Amino acid sequence: MLRKIDHIAIAVKSLDESLTFFRDRLGLSVEKIVEVPSEGVRVAFLPIGDTEIELLEPLAPDSPVAKFIEKKGPGLHHVAFDVADVAGELERLAGQGVSTLDARPRKGAVADVGFVHPRASGGVLVELSQRKKP
Amino acid sequence: MLRKIDHIAIAVKSLDESLTFFRDRLGLSVEKIVEVPSEGVRVAFLPIGDTEIELLEPLAPDSPVAKFIEKKGPGLHHVAFDVADVAGELERLAGQGVSTLDARPRKGAVADVGFVHPRASGGVLVELSQRKKP
Repeated sequence: MLRKIDHIAIAVKSLDESLTFFRDRLGLSVEKIVEVPSEGVRVAFLPIGDTEIELLEPLAPDSPVAKFIEKKGPGLHHVAFDVADVAGELERLAGQGVSTLDARPRKGAVADVGFVHPRASGGVLVELSQRKKP
Repeated sequence: MLRKIDHIAIAVKSLDESLTFFRDRLGLSVEKIVEVPSEGVRVAFLPIGDTEIELLEPLAPDSPVAKFIEKKGPGLHHVAFDVADVAGELERLAGQGVSTLDARPRKGAVADVGFVHPRASGGVLVELSQRKKP
């Protein structure tokens, strides 16, 4: 069961430039900026309402986010839904014939996550995210 | 000031097909489906947490959403932020040199809205939305 939108991720060429817009012009607050080498990104977290915007800047030209930007240009990258049991959700979806990129959860920076294949969702990269207990 | 994410809009080829995923597989509820001829779309509203997913199906091949799908494929289309005063926000942003697609708010189906130009935001189509009083 999806409880809320955990975050909306945006692929950006430069955190500095995109923060000029999202922080300085729109007025969003930056909670933190974290480097996640395992995913090849530097991430700025901007909470708003019960969710947050995540700005993803690639760390290297061969990272998945760099390749996304090369192919599609910078912009909206994926939407993540908050779930209580990501392993159970992945199993449930697979049982219904939904293609997933992850059969089992992988460890993310702040959550255990699993991705649904965009072909299952009509072109949207969908993440399921189970936050780690603080 | 942005108060929350009003909605995330997804361009889809077919509402029926995408509802099979978002409603039947992910388990989101459909609040309503509305035809908005002025925007050239049929929209399904799927509330989640303090925001909602809007699935946009083009009504005609020359509509903006149909052209988006033709160019980029179906997928994440724009993100809308809830504001108290959309006219004031558009004026404030323009005063800071931010390119907008609308100098003044236009009447949407459920809100007065204005769009920021994607070149100002690093490739993301950003909507500012002021809900009409019920």
